[in-house]
Amino acid sequence: MSEFPKAVVLLSGGLDSATALAIALQTGFDCHALAVDYGQRHRSELQAAARVAASMDVPLKVVSIDLRAIGGSALTDDIEVPEHETEGIPVTYVPARNTIMLSLALGLAEVIGAQSIFIGVNAVDFSGYPDCRPAYIRAYQAMANLATKAAVEGHRLQIQTPLVLMSKADIIRQGTDLGVDYSLTVSCYQADDEGRACRVCDSCRIRAAGFEAASVPDPTRYRDQLSRN
Amino acid sequence: MSEFPKAVVLLSGGLDSATALAIALQTGFDCHALAVDYGQRHRSELQAAARVAASMDVPLKVVSIDLRAIGGSALTDDIEVPEHETEGIPVTYVPARNTIMLSLALGLAEVIGAQSIFIGVNAVDFSGYPDCRPAYIRAYQAMANLATKAAVEGHRLQIQTPLVLMSKADIIRQGTDLGVDYSLTVSCYQADDEGRACRVCDSCRIRAAGFEAASVPDPTRYRDQLSRN
Repeated sequence: MSEFPKAVVLLSGGLDSATALAIALQTGFDCHALAVDYGQRHRSELQAAARVAASMDVPLKVVSIDLRAIGGSALTDDIEVPEHETEGIPVTYVPARNTIMLSLALGLAEVIGAQSIFIGVNAVDFSGYPDCRPAYIRAYQAMANLATKAAVEGHRLQIQTPLVLMSKADIIRQGTDLGVDYSLTVSCYQADDEGRACRVCDSCRIRAAGFEAASVPDPTRYRDQLSRN
Repeated sequence: MSEFPKAVVLLSGGLDSATALAIALQTGFDCHALAVDYGQRHRSELQAAARVAASMDVPLKVVSIDLRAIGGSALTDDIEVPEHETEGIPVTYVPARNTIMLSLALGLAEVIGAQSIFIGVNAVDFSGYPDCRPAYIRAYQAMANLATKAAVEGHRLQIQTPLVLMSKADIIRQGTDLGVDYSLTVSCYQADDEGRACRVCDSCRIRAAGFEAASVPDPTRYRDQLSRN
Protein backbone atom coordinates (compact mmCIF):
# COMPACT_ATOMS: atom_id res chain seq x y z
CA MET A 1 0.00 0.00 0.00
CA SER A 2 1.29 3.44 -0.94
CA GLU A 3 2.46 5.71 1.88
CA PHE A 4 1.51 8.82 -0.06
CA PRO A 5 -1.86 10.51 0.39
CA LYS A 6 -4.29 9.61 -2.37
CA ALA A 7 -5.84 12.04 -4.80
CA VAL A 8 -8.46 11.66 -7.50
CA VAL A 9 -7.49 13.75 -10.52
CA LEU A 10 -10.14 14.59 -13.11
CA LEU A 11 -8.55 14.09 -16.51
CA SER A 12 -10.24 15.37 -19.65
CA GLY A 13 -7.49 14.78 -22.16
CA GLY A 14 -6.94 18.52 -22.46
CA LEU A 15 -3.94 20.66 -21.64
CA ASP A 16 -5.18 21.96 -18.28
CA SER A 17 -6.04 18.65 -16.62
CA ALA A 18 -2.76 17.09 -17.82
CA THR A 19 -0.95 19.93 -16.06
CA ALA A 20 -3.07 19.52 -12.93
CA LEU A 21 -2.12 15.82 -12.86
CA ALA A 22 1.59 16.67 -13.19
CA ILE A 23 1.27 19.16 -10.33
CA ALA A 24 -0.57 16.63 -8.12
CA LEU A 25 2.17 14.05 -8.76
CA GLN A 26 4.92 16.54 -8.07
CA THR A 27 3.20 17.57 -4.82
CA GLY A 28 3.55 13.95 -3.71
CA PHE A 29 0.07 12.50 -4.19
CA ASP A 30 -0.66 8.91 -5.12
CA CYS A 31 -2.84 9.90 -8.08
CA HIS A 32 -5.88 8.07 -9.46
CA ALA A 33 -7.12 9.62 -12.69
CA LEU A 34 -10.82 9.73 -13.55
CA ALA A 35 -12.14 10.51 -17.02
CA VAL A 36 -15.81 10.98 -17.71
CA ASP A 37 -17.28 9.80 -20.98
CA TYR A 38 -20.31 12.08 -21.12
CA GLY A 39 -21.24 11.49 -24.74
CA GLN A 40 -18.99 14.30 -25.93
CA ARG A 41 -18.70 14.74 -29.68
CA HIS A 42 -14.92 14.96 -29.51
CA ARG A 43 -14.25 11.32 -28.56
CA SER A 44 -10.55 11.77 -29.15
CA GLU A 45 -10.49 13.61 -25.77
CA LEU A 46 -10.91 10.27 -24.01
CA GLN A 47 -8.11 8.68 -26.00
CA ALA A 48 -5.94 11.65 -25.07
CA ALA A 49 -6.81 11.15 -21.37
CA ALA A 50 -5.69 7.52 -21.65
CA ARG A 51 -2.39 8.57 -23.31
CA VAL A 52 -1.73 11.24 -20.68
CA ALA A 53 -2.43 8.88 -17.76
CA ALA A 54 -0.20 6.21 -19.30
CA SER A 55 2.61 8.70 -19.91
CA MET A 56 2.60 9.62 -16.21
CA ASP A 57 2.12 6.01 -15.06
CA VAL A 58 -1.16 6.73 -13.29
CA PRO A 59 -4.19 4.38 -13.21
CA LEU A 60 -7.24 5.70 -15.07
CA LYS A 61 -10.90 4.91 -14.52
CA VAL A 62 -13.48 5.92 -17.11
CA VAL A 63 -17.07 6.45 -16.00
CA SER A 64 -19.64 6.56 -18.77
CA ILE A 65 -22.66 8.76 -18.49
CA ASP A 66 -25.04 9.74 -21.23
CA LEU A 67 -25.66 13.48 -20.89
CA ARG A 68 -27.40 13.51 -24.27
CA ALA A 69 -30.58 12.52 -22.39
CA ILE A 70 -30.28 15.96 -20.76
CA GLY A 71 -29.03 17.96 -23.75
CA GLY A 72 -28.40 21.67 -23.82
CA SER A 73 -24.86 22.06 -25.17
CA ALA A 74 -23.03 22.30 -28.47
CA LEU A 75 -20.58 19.72 -27.12
CA THR A 76 -23.16 16.96 -26.88
CA ASP A 77 -25.97 18.15 -29.17
CA ASP A 78 -26.13 18.90 -32.85
CA ILE A 79 -25.55 22.64 -32.52
CA GLU A 80 -22.77 24.17 -34.59
CA VAL A 81 -19.62 24.96 -32.57
CA PRO A 82 -18.93 28.70 -33.00
CA GLU A 83 -15.75 29.69 -34.84
CA HIS A 84 -15.50 33.18 -33.38
CA GLU A 85 -15.20 34.80 -29.95
CA THR A 86 -18.56 34.98 -28.18
CA GLU A 87 -19.77 37.25 -25.38
CA GLY A 88 -20.66 35.84 -21.95
CA ILE A 89 -21.22 32.13 -21.39
CA PRO A 90 -20.41 30.15 -24.54
CA VAL A 91 -22.90 27.73 -26.13
CA THR A 92 -20.30 25.01 -25.62
CA TYR A 93 -21.17 25.18 -21.90
CA VAL A 94 -22.32 21.74 -20.69
CA PRO A 95 -25.03 22.09 -18.01
CA ALA A 96 -23.68 21.22 -14.58
CA ARG A 97 -20.65 19.50 -16.13
CA ASN A 98 -18.11 20.25 -13.42
CA THR A 99 -20.70 19.53 -10.73
CA ILE A 100 -21.37 16.13 -12.28
CA MET A 101 -17.67 15.35 -12.79
CA LEU A 102 -16.73 16.42 -9.25
CA SER A 103 -19.56 14.26 -7.90
CA LEU A 104 -18.19 11.20 -9.67
CA ALA A 105 -14.72 12.08 -8.36
CA LEU A 106 -16.24 12.39 -4.89
CA GLY A 107 -17.66 8.87 -5.14
CA LEU A 108 -14.30 7.46 -6.25
CA ALA A 109 -12.46 9.47 -3.57
CA GLU A 110 -14.65 7.92 -0.92
CA VAL A 111 -14.17 4.37 -2.23
CA ILE A 112 -10.35 4.57 -2.48
CA GLY A 113 -9.92 6.76 0.61
CA ALA A 114 -8.64 9.89 -1.16
CA GLN A 115 -8.93 13.19 0.66
CA SER A 116 -8.07 15.41 -2.30
CA ILE A 117 -9.69 15.89 -5.68
CA PHE A 118 -7.76 17.80 -8.33
CA ILE A 119 -9.62 19.58 -11.10
CA GLY A 120 -7.94 21.74 -13.72
CA VAL A 121 -10.49 24.55 -13.73
CA ASN A 122 -9.32 27.98 -14.68
CA ALA A 123 -11.16 31.20 -13.99
CA VAL A 124 -8.96 33.38 -16.21
CA ASP A 125 -9.27 32.13 -19.78
CA PHE A 126 -12.72 30.57 -19.37
CA SER A 127 -14.38 33.14 -17.14
CA GLY A 128 -17.68 32.53 -18.93
CA TYR A 129 -18.17 29.20 -17.12
CA PRO A 130 -19.76 29.69 -13.68
CA ASP A 131 -18.50 26.32 -12.46
CA CYS A 132 -14.84 27.32 -12.89
CA ARG A 133 -14.88 30.12 -10.31
CA PRO A 134 -13.21 29.93 -6.87
CA ALA A 135 -16.51 30.73 -5.08
CA TYR A 136 -18.14 27.73 -6.77
CA ILE A 137 -15.25 25.43 -5.83
CA ARG A 138 -15.40 26.57 -2.19
CA ALA A 139 -19.14 25.89 -2.07
CA TYR A 140 -18.60 22.48 -3.65
CA GLN A 141 -16.00 21.58 -1.04
CA ALA A 142 -18.34 22.67 1.78
CA MET A 143 -21.11 20.48 0.35
CA ALA A 144 -18.76 17.53 -0.21
CA ASN A 145 -17.71 17.63 3.43
CA LEU A 146 -21.33 17.01 4.42
CA ALA A 147 -22.02 14.43 1.71
CA THR A 148 -19.98 11.37 2.46
CA LYS A 149 -19.43 8.71 5.07
CA ALA A 150 -15.71 9.54 5.06
CA ALA A 151 -16.34 13.25 5.72
CA VAL A 152 -18.87 12.45 8.44
CA GLU A 153 -16.21 10.28 10.05
CA GLY A 154 -13.83 13.25 10.10
CA HIS A 155 -11.74 12.77 6.95
CA ARG A 156 -12.12 16.20 5.41
CA LEU A 157 -11.93 16.47 1.66
CA GLN A 158 -10.14 19.18 -0.31
CA ILE A 159 -10.97 20.25 -3.85
CA GLN A 160 -7.63 21.33 -5.28
CA THR A 161 -7.56 23.75 -8.20
CA PRO A 162 -3.89 24.53 -8.80
CA LEU A 163 -4.59 26.27 -12.14
CA VAL A 164 -7.55 28.40 -11.12
CA LEU A 165 -5.80 31.76 -11.21
CA MET A 166 -3.04 30.98 -13.73
CA SER A 167 -2.93 32.32 -17.26
CA LYS A 168 -2.81 29.77 -20.07
CA ALA A 169 0.82 30.75 -20.67
CA ASP A 170 1.69 30.13 -17.00
CA ILE A 171 -0.01 26.74 -17.12
CA ILE A 172 1.96 25.77 -20.22
CA ARG A 173 5.25 26.98 -18.72
CA GLN A 174 4.70 25.10 -15.46
CA GLY A 175 3.60 21.92 -17.25
CA THR A 176 6.60 22.11 -19.56
CA ASP A 177 8.88 22.44 -16.52
CA LEU A 178 7.23 19.31 -15.08
CA GLY A 179 7.75 17.38 -18.29
CA VAL A 180 4.16 17.24 -19.55
CA ASP A 181 4.05 16.07 -23.16
CA TYR A 182 1.39 18.38 -24.56
CA SER A 183 1.47 16.60 -27.91
CA LEU A 184 -0.59 13.89 -26.17
CA THR A 185 -3.36 16.32 -25.20
CA VAL A 186 -6.38 17.44 -27.20
CA SER A 187 -8.16 20.72 -26.47
CA CYS A 188 -10.16 21.23 -29.68
CA TYR A 189 -13.97 21.18 -29.39
CA GLN A 190 -14.19 19.39 -32.74
CA ALA A 191 -11.01 17.34 -33.03
CA ASP A 192 -11.07 14.55 -35.60
CA ASP A 193 -10.70 10.84 -34.80
CA GLU A 194 -6.92 11.17 -34.74
CA GLY A 195 -7.13 14.05 -32.28
CA ARG A 196 -6.18 16.68 -34.86
CA ALA A 197 -7.46 20.15 -34.01
CA CYS A 198 -9.62 22.53 -36.06
CA ARG A 199 -7.57 25.64 -35.24
CA VAL A 200 -10.68 27.87 -35.32
CA CYS A 201 -12.80 27.06 -32.23
CA ASP A 202 -12.46 29.08 -28.99
CA SER A 203 -10.49 26.31 -27.33
CA CYS A 204 -7.99 26.03 -30.21
CA ARG A 205 -7.45 29.77 -30.30
CA ILE A 206 -6.89 30.07 -26.55
CA ARG A 207 -4.49 27.12 -26.60
CA ALA A 208 -2.45 28.46 -29.53
CA ALA A 209 -2.25 31.90 -27.92
CA GLY A 210 -1.04 30.24 -24.70
CA PHE A 211 1.88 28.50 -26.40
CA GLU A 212 2.72 31.75 -28.19
CA ALA A 213 2.66 33.78 -24.94
CA ALA A 214 4.67 31.11 -23.09
CA SER A 215 7.28 31.05 -25.87
CA VAL A 216 6.92 27.26 -25.94
CA PRO A 217 6.79 25.49 -29.32
CA ASP A 218 3.17 24.43 -30.00
CA PRO A 219 3.03 20.64 -30.53
CA THR A 220 -0.67 20.69 -31.50
CA ARG A 221 -1.55 18.68 -34.59
CA TYR A 222 -3.98 20.54 -36.84
CA ARG A 223 -6.20 19.06 -39.53
CA ASP A 224 -5.11 21.64 -42.10
CA GLN A 225 -1.45 20.84 -41.57
CA LEU A 226 0.57 18.32 -43.58
CA SER A 227 1.54 15.47 -41.25
CA ARG A 228 4.95 15.94 -39.76
CA ASN A 229 7.69 13.33 -40.37
CA MET B 1 -46.06 26.30 -22.96
CA SER B 2 -47.11 25.53 -19.39
CA GLU B 3 -47.87 28.47 -17.09
CA PHE B 4 -46.79 26.51 -14.03
CA PRO B 5 -43.27 26.73 -12.64
CA LYS B 6 -41.16 23.76 -13.67
CA ALA B 7 -39.60 21.25 -11.32
CA VAL B 8 -37.27 18.33 -11.85
CA VAL B 9 -38.32 15.44 -9.60
CA LEU B 10 -35.83 12.65 -8.92
CA LEU B 11 -37.74 9.39 -9.20
CA SER B 12 -36.22 6.14 -7.99
CA GLY B 13 -39.22 3.86 -8.26
CA GLY B 14 -39.48 3.70 -4.48
CA LEU B 15 -42.19 4.80 -2.12
CA ASP B 16 -40.56 8.08 -1.02
CA SER B 17 -39.84 9.57 -4.43
CA ALA B 18 -43.34 8.64 -5.68
CA THR B 19 -44.75 10.61 -2.74
CA ALA B 20 -42.41 13.54 -3.42
CA LEU B 21 -43.66 13.61 -7.02
CA ALA B 22 -47.30 13.62 -5.86
CA ILE B 23 -46.54 16.51 -3.48
CA ALA B 24 -44.74 18.47 -6.22
CA LEU B 25 -47.72 18.03 -8.55
CA GLN B 26 -50.18 19.01 -5.85
CA THR B 27 -48.11 22.12 -5.05
CA GLY B 28 -48.66 23.20 -8.66
CA PHE B 29 -45.39 22.37 -10.38
CA ASP B 30 -45.05 21.32 -13.99
CA CYS B 31 -43.04 18.19 -13.12
CA HIS B 32 -40.31 16.52 -15.15
CA ALA B 33 -39.20 13.23 -13.62
CA LEU B 34 -35.60 12.07 -13.80
CA ALA B 35 -34.52 8.51 -13.05
CA VAL B 36 -30.89 7.51 -12.88
CA ASP B 37 -29.81 4.11 -14.09
CA TYR B 38 -26.62 3.74 -12.05
CA GLY B 39 -26.07 0.04 -12.63
CA GLN B 40 -28.19 -0.89 -9.60
CA ARG B 41 -28.76 -4.59 -9.04
CA HIS B 42 -32.46 -4.10 -8.52
CA ARG B 43 -33.35 -3.15 -12.10
CA SER B 44 -37.03 -3.41 -11.35
CA GLU B 45 -36.63 -0.01 -9.60
CA LEU B 46 -36.35 1.64 -13.01
CA GLN B 47 -39.44 -0.13 -14.30
CA ALA B 48 -41.26 1.05 -11.18
CA ALA B 49 -40.11 4.63 -11.85
CA ALA B 50 -41.57 4.40 -15.36
CA ARG B 51 -44.88 3.05 -14.00
CA VAL B 52 -45.10 5.78 -11.35
CA ALA B 53 -44.34 8.58 -13.85
CA ALA B 54 -46.93 7.19 -16.28
CA SER B 55 -49.55 6.88 -13.54
CA MET B 56 -49.15 10.58 -12.73
CA ASP B 57 -48.90 11.61 -16.39
CA VAL B 58 -45.42 13.09 -15.98
CA PRO B 59 -42.61 12.87 -18.59
CA LEU B 60 -39.62 10.79 -17.47
CA LYS B 61 -36.01 11.00 -18.60
CA VAL B 62 -33.59 8.22 -17.73
CA VAL B 63 -29.87 9.03 -17.53
CA SER B 64 -27.55 6.05 -17.56
CA ILE B 65 -24.33 6.10 -15.62
CA ASP B 66 -22.10 3.20 -14.77
CA LEU B 67 -21.14 3.54 -11.11
CA ARG B 68 -19.70 0.02 -11.13
CA ALA B 69 -16.47 1.61 -12.43
CA ILE B 70 -16.34 3.33 -9.04
CA GLY B 71 -17.67 0.49 -6.88
CA GLY B 72 -18.00 0.54 -3.13
CA SER B 73 -21.59 -0.48 -2.41
CA ALA B 74 -23.68 -3.61 -1.96
CA LEU B 75 -26.23 -2.07 -4.33
CA THR B 76 -23.87 -2.09 -7.31
CA ASP B 77 -21.19 -4.60 -6.30
CA ASP B 78 -21.32 -8.28 -5.50
CA ILE B 79 -21.51 -7.87 -1.72
CA GLU B 80 -24.32 -9.64 0.09
CA VAL B 81 -27.18 -7.34 1.12
CA PRO B 82 -27.58 -7.64 4.91
CA GLU B 83 -30.80 -9.18 6.21
CA HIS B 84 -30.63 -7.64 9.66
CA GLU B 85 -30.52 -4.17 11.19
CA THR B 86 -26.99 -2.70 11.04
CA GLU B 87 -25.35 0.00 13.15
CA GLY B 88 -24.27 3.31 11.59
CA ILE B 89 -24.01 3.78 7.83
CA PRO B 90 -25.26 0.68 6.00
CA VAL B 91 -23.13 -1.17 3.43
CA THR B 92 -25.90 -0.47 0.92
CA TYR B 93 -24.71 3.15 0.94
CA VAL B 94 -23.76 4.19 -2.62
CA PRO B 95 -20.81 6.62 -2.57
CA ALA B 96 -21.93 10.15 -3.42
CA ARG B 97 -25.21 8.85 -4.84
CA ASN B 98 -27.45 11.78 -3.94
CA THR B 99 -24.70 14.22 -4.95
CA ILE B 100 -24.47 12.55 -8.36
CA MET B 101 -28.25 12.35 -8.81
CA LEU B 102 -28.80 15.98 -7.75
CA SER B 103 -26.06 17.02 -10.17
CA LEU B 104 -27.84 15.32 -13.06
CA ALA B 105 -31.09 16.95 -11.93
CA LEU B 106 -29.26 20.28 -11.84
CA GLY B 107 -28.17 19.84 -15.46
CA LEU B 108 -31.73 18.99 -16.55
CA ALA B 109 -33.15 21.85 -14.47
CA GLU B 110 -30.90 24.27 -16.26
CA VAL B 111 -31.79 22.95 -19.71
CA ILE B 112 -35.58 23.02 -19.20
CA GLY B 113 -35.57 26.18 -17.06
CA ALA B 114 -36.71 24.59 -13.78
CA GLN B 115 -36.01 26.46 -10.57
CA SER B 116 -36.89 23.61 -8.23
CA ILE B 117 -35.53 20.11 -7.79
CA PHE B 118 -37.51 17.68 -5.66
CA ILE B 119 -35.74 14.80 -3.95
CA GLY B 120 -37.44 12.37 -1.59
CA VAL B 121 -34.69 12.19 1.00
CA ASN B 122 -35.64 11.43 4.54
CA ALA B 123 -33.48 12.03 7.58
CA VAL B 124 -35.65 10.03 9.99
CA ASP B 125 -35.74 6.42 8.82
CA PHE B 126 -32.41 6.54 6.94
CA SER B 127 -30.36 8.62 9.33
CA GLY B 128 -27.29 6.54 8.47
CA TYR B 129 -26.94 8.26 5.07
CA PRO B 130 -25.02 11.54 5.34
CA ASP B 131 -26.46 12.81 2.04
CA CYS B 132 -30.04 12.71 3.36
CA ARG B 133 -29.55 15.33 6.08
CA PRO B 134 -30.93 18.90 5.92
CA ALA B 135 -27.44 20.40 6.40
CA TYR B 136 -26.22 18.53 3.32
CA ILE B 137 -29.20 19.68 1.26
CA ARG B 138 -28.66 23.31 2.28
CA ALA B 139 -24.98 23.10 1.28
CA TYR B 140 -25.95 21.49 -2.03
CA GLN B 141 -28.38 24.31 -2.77
CA ALA B 142 -25.74 26.95 -1.96
CA MET B 143 -23.30 25.23 -4.32
CA ALA B 144 -25.93 24.82 -7.04
CA ASN B 145 -26.66 28.53 -6.96
CA LEU B 146 -23.04 29.20 -7.91
CA ALA B 147 -22.80 26.39 -10.45
CA THR B 148 -25.01 27.24 -13.37
CA LYS B 149 -25.56 29.84 -16.02
CA ALA B 150 -29.19 30.17 -14.90
CA ALA B 151 -28.20 30.83 -11.27
CA VAL B 152 -25.53 33.32 -12.35
CA GLU B 153 -28.24 35.12 -14.34
CA GLY B 154 -30.35 35.42 -11.18
CA HIS B 155 -32.71 32.43 -11.41
CA ARG B 156 -32.15 30.95 -7.99
CA LEU B 157 -32.63 27.24 -7.59
CA GLN B 158 -34.36 25.49 -4.69
CA ILE B 159 -33.74 21.92 -3.61
CA GLN B 160 -37.09 20.81 -2.20
CA THR B 161 -37.19 17.94 0.29
CA PRO B 162 -40.84 17.68 1.39
CA LEU B 163 -40.26 14.34 3.16
CA VAL B 164 -37.07 15.14 4.99
CA LEU B 165 -38.51 15.25 8.49
CA MET B 166 -41.53 12.96 8.02
CA SER B 167 -41.82 9.48 9.45
CA LYS B 168 -42.40 6.64 7.00
CA ALA B 169 -45.97 6.38 8.29
CA ASP B 170 -46.57 10.11 7.65
CA ILE B 171 -45.18 9.77 4.13
CA ILE B 172 -47.48 6.83 3.40
CA ARG B 173 -50.51 8.64 4.87
CA GLN B 174 -49.85 11.80 2.85
CA GLY B 175 -49.19 9.86 -0.35
CA THR B 176 -52.35 7.82 0.15
CA ASP B 177 -54.34 11.06 0.58
CA LEU B 178 -52.82 12.30 -2.70
CA GLY B 179 -53.79 9.08 -4.50
CA VAL B 180 -50.34 7.53 -4.91
CA ASP B 181 -50.64 3.91 -6.00
CA TYR B 182 -47.92 2.31 -3.88
CA SER B 183 -48.44 -1.05 -5.56
CA LEU B 184 -46.48 0.46 -8.48
CA THR B 185 -43.44 1.22 -6.32
CA VAL B 186 -40.50 -1.00 -5.39
CA SER B 187 -38.39 -0.37 -2.30
CA CYS B 188 -36.63 -3.72 -1.88
CA TYR B 189 -32.84 -3.76 -2.25
CA GLN B 190 -33.05 -7.14 -3.97
CA ALA B 191 -36.42 -7.20 -5.74
CA ASP B 192 -36.81 -9.83 -8.46
CA ASP B 193 -37.42 -9.06 -12.14
CA GLU B 194 -41.15 -8.67 -11.49
CA GLY B 195 -40.48 -6.18 -8.71
CA ARG B 196 -41.43 -8.64 -5.92
CA ALA B 197 -39.80 -7.83 -2.62
CA CYS B 198 -37.61 -10.02 -0.37
CA ARG B 199 -39.31 -8.96 2.89
CA VAL B 200 -36.02 -9.26 4.87
CA CYS B 201 -33.74 -6.38 3.80
CA ASP B 202 -33.62 -3.08 5.75
CA SER B 203 -35.67 -1.32 3.10
CA CYS B 204 -38.41 -3.98 3.10
CA ARG B 205 -38.65 -3.95 6.88
CA ILE B 206 -38.86 -0.14 7.12
CA ARG B 207 -41.51 -0.06 4.39
CA ALA B 208 -43.66 -2.78 5.98
CA ALA B 209 -43.44 -1.10 9.38
CA GLY B 210 -44.50 2.18 7.74
CA PHE B 211 -47.71 0.72 6.30
CA GLU B 212 -48.40 -0.94 9.64
CA ALA B 213 -47.89 2.33 11.56
CA ALA B 214 -49.96 4.31 9.05
CA SER B 215 -52.79 1.75 9.25
CA VAL B 216 -52.78 1.60 5.46
CA PRO B 217 -53.09 -1.83 3.77
CA ASP B 218 -49.63 -2.83 2.44
CA PRO B 219 -49.88 -3.45 -1.33
CA THR B 220 -46.28 -4.72 -1.57
CA ARG B 221 -45.85 -7.92 -3.57
CA TYR B 222 -43.46 -10.33 -1.85
CA ARG B 223 -41.59 -13.22 -3.44
CA ASP B 224 -42.66 -15.65 -0.69
CA GLN B 225 -46.34 -14.83 -1.22
CA LEU B 226 -48.70 -16.77 -3.49
CA SER B 227 -49.75 -14.49 -6.32
CA ARG B 228 -52.99 -12.70 -5.58
CA ASN B 229 -56.04 -13.16 -7.84
